[in-house]
Amino acid sequence: MAKEKKQPRPKAETPKGFRDYFGADVTERKAMLDRIAAIYHRHGFDPLETSAVETVEALGKFLPDVDRPNAGVFAWQEEAVPGGGSGDWLALRYDLTAPLARVAAQFRNDLPSPYRRYAMGPVWRNEKPGPGRFRQFYQCDADTVGSASVAADAEICGMLADALEAVGIARGDYLVRINNRKVLNGVLEAAEVREDQAADVLRQIDKFDKVGRDGVLALLTVGRTDDSGARIEGVGLSEAQAAPVLAFLTSKSADNMATLANLAAAVGGSAVGAEGVDELSQMADMLAAMGVAEDRAVIDPSVVRGLGYYTGPVFEAELTFEILDEKGRKRQFGSVAGGGRYDGLVERFTGQKVPATGVSIGVDRLLAALRAKGLAGAEARGPVVVTVMDRDRMSDYQAMAADLRAADIRAEVYLGNPKNFGNQLKYADKRGAPVAIIQGADEAQRGVVQVKDLALGAKIAAEASVEEWKSQPAQTEVPRTGLVAEVRRILG
Amino acid sequence: MAKEKKQPRPKAETPKGFRDYFGADVTERKAMLDRIAAIYHRHGFDPLETSAVETVEALGKFLPDVDRPNAGVFAWQEEAVPGGGSGDWLALRYDLTAPLARVAAQFRNDLPSPYRRYAMGPVWRNEKPGPGRFRQFYQCDADTVGSASVAADAEICGMLADALEAVGIARGDYLVRINNRKVLNGVLEAAEVREDQAADVLRQIDKFDKVGRDGVLALLTVGRTDDSGARIEGVGLSEAQAAPVLAFLTSKSADNMATLANLAAAVGGSAVGAEGVDELSQMADMLAAMGVAEDRAVIDPSVVRGLGYYTGPVFEAELTFEILDEKGRKRQFGSVAGGGRYDGLVERFTGQKVPATGVSIGVDRLLAALRAKGLAGAEARGPVVVTVMDRDRMSDYQAMAADLRAADIRAEVYLGNPKNFGNQLKYADKRGAPVAIIQGADEAQRGVVQVKDLALGAKIAAEASVEEWKSQPAQTEVPRTGLVAEVRRILG
Repeated sequence: MAKEKKQPRPKAETPKGFRDYFGADVTERKAMLDRIAAIYHRHGFDPLETSAVETVEALGKFLPDVDRPNAGVFAWQEEAVPGGGSGDWLALRYDLTAPLARVAAQFRNDLPSPYRRYAMGPVWRNEKPGPGRFRQFYQCDADTVGSASVAADAEICGMLADALEAVGIARGDYLVRINNRKVLNGVLEAAEVREDQAADVLRQIDKFDKVGRDGVLALLTVGRTDDSGARIEGVGLSEAQAAPVLAFLTSKSADNMATLANLAAAVGGSAVGAEGVDELSQMADMLAAMGVAEDRAVIDPSVVRGLGYYTGPVFEAELTFEILDEKGRKRQFGSVAGGGRYDGLVERFTGQKVPATGVSIGVDRLLAALRAKGLAGAEARGPVVVTVMDRDRMSDYQAMAADLRAADIRAEVYLGNPKNFGNQLKYADKRGAPVAIIQGADEAQRGVVQVKDLALGAKIAAEASVEEWKSQPAQTEVPRTGLVAEVRRILG
Repeated sequence: MAKEKKQPRPKAETPKGFRDYFGADVTERKAMLDRIAAIYHRHGFDPLETSAVETVEALGKFLPDVDRPNAGVFAWQEEAVPGGGSGDWLALRYDLTAPLARVAAQFRNDLPSPYRRYAMGPVWRNEKPGPGRFRQFYQCDADTVGSASVAADAEICGMLADALEAVGIARGDYLVRINNRKVLNGVLEAAEVREDQAADVLRQIDKFDKVGRDGVLALLTVGRTDDSGARIEGVGLSEAQAAPVLAFLTSKSADNMATLANLAAAVGGSAVGAEGVDELSQMADMLAAMGVAEDRAVIDPSVVRGLGYYTGPVFEAELTFEILDEKGRKRQFGSVAGGGRYDGLVERFTGQKVPATGVSIGVDRLLAALRAKGLAGAEARGPVVVTVMDRDRMSDYQAMAADLRAADIRAEVYLGNPKNFGNQLKYADKRGAPVAIIQGADEAQRGVVQVKDLALGAKIAAEASVEEWKSQPAQTEVPRTGLVAEVRRILG
């Protein structure tokens, strides 16, 4: 008989484009999402957790993030088994909106209407991975389904401001900026922009941030030559047509009242434009009534992202403080959340138009902002490590750890091979342990323990002379009965 | 030109075998897992969140749950694209142990050793769904990788007891029962059971719960006839050989000391048996030192589940209180967690044997137990609903909701079409709202609001006469400035 071939060992590797989260990676994100969930809950939003898997049929091609229209999904076909697999194509959800659409249609007779829900969880995109771009990442959404009232939009803007403060962003360090697609439609109507030009106009005003007022004017009219000398063709509007569009983009004024007046002028006689301005005006009133002042949420028509997708109010939350980028240059942190009003959420399924509005927080971006500001905040400190001098007295060491835990102090016994004591201290270091506990036979007989302040020890080791180091002031001997108090003193 | 065919509408359906979780489904599970995580964290365990997707190669066929050796996975092949997809087969994880094995191998030079980690999250099984059996469900695991010491096992048993109390199970309502595979091996050695008979013996003693001592005796020897008259063949041991096995199964005594004495007798002169008894004895000592008394975790050799898979200590947590089953009969709730020591976790990847021990809590079962005992505990109460009598005064209603929320009271404004007031109260009912706020033009002019106690109202409606109902004692008028205080009074 031929000898059986030895199987090669499998590679221990995270699949390409995926990653693992360890320790504080997990707890910091969780702490942030918990705080956001508490705010959403207090606003009457209910959690919804759909399964990760949807039928490809239900998922459809409904991708709200217009930046990635061709994003792929991870999909597979079920085996068709009598009484078992259906032969359906299944896929991992690529966002939290498509499952909401399915749920809103499937449970339309059972859910309250309007239905306020929040959802937090991973989504999957079958895209080419890149630096900082993963194929599984978190989303955090809140949506109100079934309300046509801009009160729903105002509520979400106020809630978003509350959520940002709840995770630790100070008032003044963020701003929710609000625009309205209907106002833009009114402006285009007032400017007599042809329907076939509208998409081009949208594409050009999207560059407002980069090229400024004069740049957009050129792009809307005769075109421009960029810094590299490349010629960019214009939309072909006259200067008179471009004027209301520019007025719209630059209408942000000292306060909402003044901005609204500018907008009313920009939309001229357009009915839909007037409707959009009225919606913004109502939102401004409601936000004020909710105690959300203009330094937290403000009307700002220069918000252009999302105008192509949303149908009414559009909003975006920006962090306004500066951080240093990879090259050490100061820059504003920028957008961490966006949303707006959209139609046709469940229309694919039921044929009925159901109005909806919602917001999505960029989980990784907001967490990065909190880390940049030192606000991520979950306990980074490792456990107190009880070392093992004498492996026959494991019970004594377990009792010490248990005493510390009973006092709500994170603690563990070293469970590796205790032979080499240096390894135990290296382990404590790797764990980020603030304190190590040591009790050899001698100490046990005398009823005492050594309590080693590892943070102080590291500081001394870095700064002190050999003599100072030898005197070991970072280690104190206390009675066993005083263990908890001494550790508490050091941690405190 | 032929008319374009109209696409049929997609079906809004959860894929077969999957489910959605709404509201309290989500918050109750989360509250439970948060409490468990806090206990695990305090014991020095770090969270690990691996991606849902693994390569099929890394996942292997390593399924620790012996009840389902043929469980399928959801898998698909990546497109092989230059610079993009690798052509690898990918799959959704079917448990949290296989990803731990991959991580322990992949990051073996970076992780502390021993590595204590906990993981909570969904896993996927491509199995035929059934009642109460879903293809996506939660697991909650804690494992210590890289420690050969039974101190690790003792710690996990104590931690499990703490976790059960942390979620609300009272002391006395649960018991962690501990056995050891080595003791059974010693018993088989003492009984001179042939190697080819061992698996049969394991299969038969697994029926101890059902058929009792005499039943197992028959199964180990000459076989038996069950209630239906069917003949079940015996393993063919002599009565003398069966005796130590039965002594093992029935060795549980008044306390650990007595049980250990029985076990020592059952293993006779077997070295591996003596090693197993010594391990149990050490665990008993350490649990006592940790303050975990025998009414919480106890040596009980009648725990046979898992003996086929684990290599050393085996443990199981049972809830000992009674609940009513579907047919209204009292029965003990039973097992909610299990675990033990296993080898070869990372051996597939590295060729090195790394000892590990761990426990898995049955998330759905434990949550069902908490619900059965009224301990699931997350807030089931809906938000206060501010109704809309006059749609032009939306700001006033938003201000009321904002005031309530500022006082940490969950509140929302009705955002549907306000025309039919009855619909608003129906909505409040569907939301489980404890209170509705009403302010029409008249009340607004007088600076008052109506506060309707919906819980009391429902009670009166169910019990009261028409006259009593008409007097509407469940509704009170208070000054607008007294709104928060009045709602707080009702909720308190």
